Amino acid sequence: MRPYVAVCGPSVASEEELAWAEEIGRRLARAGAVLVCGGLGGVMEAAARGCEAEGGTSVGILPGGDRRAANPHLTVAVATGMGEARNAVIVRTADVVIAISGEFGTLSEIALARKMGKPVVGLRTWELSKAGAPVEVVVSVASPAEATAVALQLASTPGGSSRPGGG
Amino acid sequence: MRPYVAVCGPSVASEEELAWAEEIGRRLARAGAVLVCGGLGGVMEAAARGCEAEGGTSVGILPGGDRRAANPHLTVAVATGMGEARNAVIVRTADVVIAISGEFGTLSEIALARKMGKPVVGLRTWELSKAGAPVEVVVSVASPAEATAVALQLASTPGGSSRPGGG
Amino acid sequence: MRPYVAVCGPSVASEEELAWAEEIGRRLARAGAVLVCGGLGGVMEAAARGCEAEGGTSVGILPGGDRRAANPHLTVAVATGMGEARNAVIVRTADVVIAISGEFGTLSEIALARKMGKPVVGLRTWELSKAGAPVEVVVSVASPAEATAVALQLASTPGGSSRPGGG
Amino acid sequence: MRPYVAVCGPSVASEEELAWAEEIGRRLARAGAVLVCGGLGGVMEAAARGCEAEGGTSVGILPGGDRRAANPHLTVAVATGMGEARNAVIVRTADVVIAISGEFGTLSEIALARKMGKPVVGLRTWELSKAGAPVEVVVSVASPAEATAVALQLASTPGGSSRPGGG
Repeated sequence: MRPYVAVCGPSVASEEELAWAEEIGRRLARAGAVLVCGGLGGVMEAAARGCEAEGGTSVGILPGGDRRAANPHLTVAVATGMGEARNAVIVRTADVVIAISGEFGTLSEIALARKMGKPVVGLRTWELSKAGAPVEVVVSVASPAEATAVALQLASTPGGSSRPGGG
Repeated sequence: MRPYVAVCGPSVASEEELAWAEEIGRRLARAGAVLVCGGLGGVMEAAARGCEAEGGTSVGILPGGDRRAANPHLTVAVATGMGEARNAVIVRTADVVIAISGEFGTLSEIALARKMGKPVVGLRTWELSKAGAPVEVVVSVASPAEATAVALQLASTPGGSSRPGGG
Repeated sequence: MRPYVAVCGPSVASEEELAWAEEIGRRLARAGAVLVCGGLGGVMEAAARGCEAEGGTSVGILPGGDRRAANPHLTVAVATGMGEARNAVIVRTADVVIAISGEFGTLSEIALARKMGKPVVGLRTWELSKAGAPVEVVVSVASPAEATAVALQLASTPGGSSRPGGG
Repeated sequence: MRPYVAVCGPSVASEEELAWAEEIGRRLARAGAVLVCGGLGGVMEAAARGCEAEGGTSVGILPGGDRRAANPHLTVAVATGMGEARNAVIVRTADVVIAISGEFGTLSEIALARKMGKPVVGLRTWELSKAGAPVEVVVSVASPAEATAVALQLASTPGGSSRPGGG
């Protein structure tokens, strides 16, 4: 079965973050993975645009009830009409999550993925700690190429979800 | 934007119903529509198989949290983990619903579609009345060809949702 | 454990329907049952008002994301922000559903309840048939007193969900 | 309208955390607030027990579809059958969130609350940073008394959601 990889990040992003997302979308398409995203703009649109450019398959899972709010680069758009609860559907559908930078929506997707026992790969995203001690919630990487390679490896690893940061 | 057409019906269906669903899936694919279904077996699988056979695009929106429960003919499978609440997502994502025969899940999709102001085309499905007087909730058709033609026409009609059976 | 009984019906209802809903709310409160409803106006508000008048407990499960849209007679209001998908939560939370008259939202709750194997008691609500043959989906009753008595009996019957109309 | 305060924390917690949750539940009840929680054990149950001990009102919003999984101290239990997506309903229903310690579920509730513009008060919970710089996502407090006082003040402040940690 094809791996499903969610790419999460803000709808308003820097040029660099958009370039990262587009490259990740391209690499996921070339690897035959299905891209899962929130279906809107910014990082979501850039990843879908990259995926489309390589003839890949993507699905955007929207918070609103109107499919026309989706970016134009998706293979399929799903209108949940469920608001933020749709973040749980994005994560549930994916085998692994790549988080790029991100605001609170992305943080919720990181948390929901870990709660579900799914690995998260992070590119300049949230850092977490408790009582001053860092907790490795995300597998940090330094480039879109590494993000894609690590995500695809984790998606194919039975123990992928029990790696550092698991539980 | 491509029309999205949901095909709803039971996971255990007759040979005739399965043949209808497969033909509708084929016709939707040839028309360039996106097939939306519940992602499981029976009518859902037959419609997806027909769509796949014509190189069409389909999305299956699953009640469970495991994508592997999806039938193998979908372009994309979405695992909601929301149980029956996912019926509202199927309908919200579609412009029009085709109901084939059906049990209670299909009845809920007919009702949710009408509640959302979306038209429903029915092939041998539920008939409704109040105080003994029939209420035309569904646009009844007699064949897969008619179901697809009427559904696509309704999907492209601004007033599609205010046809008989509306409100 | 206290029985949970959902009372479903339109937000715009006749005086008679509102009087029925209020009486059912009063009777459920006196019986120690928890009233579950959609939290808005019409039948939902009348049932909550009756429940409140007898010092009962009620929960309104709202489609929107703002608790302030709830009617003022509820013990607790839950803002789902999920739109029509919240109908599945109303039904899932209840042991039995009482449907009063009703439009498409009520029909979806009848269908979801039967899909979940839960009994539905109907007061002048939808009648269903297939191929011209009536299907007893709802246990029809003639008065608020009968609706409450039958609903409470079904809620306490292990086999309640396998009564006529079941499956 | 009564304030609604969510108390979030792990189902397996330390004695100290359970004592904190119970005291917060007691204080919320005495203040006339409605306690919102996930309905299960640990911190959720301790908060509901404290609320019940003071005659307060609480609602537990469960991930599963069976109300019988709820702890026995709730005024009302809602069975969503939506899994982790129910975390969004807990937060949507509350005016403010109190996070106690917590694992990934609690982190998702913190993130969803901030995404929705709702304030979060934290007792020994997650600390967040980006690029090594702390981000004040949560209003940190040192005791159950302070947690309750700050939460109730934020719930009643129109600008509550635009305090430090907002956005």
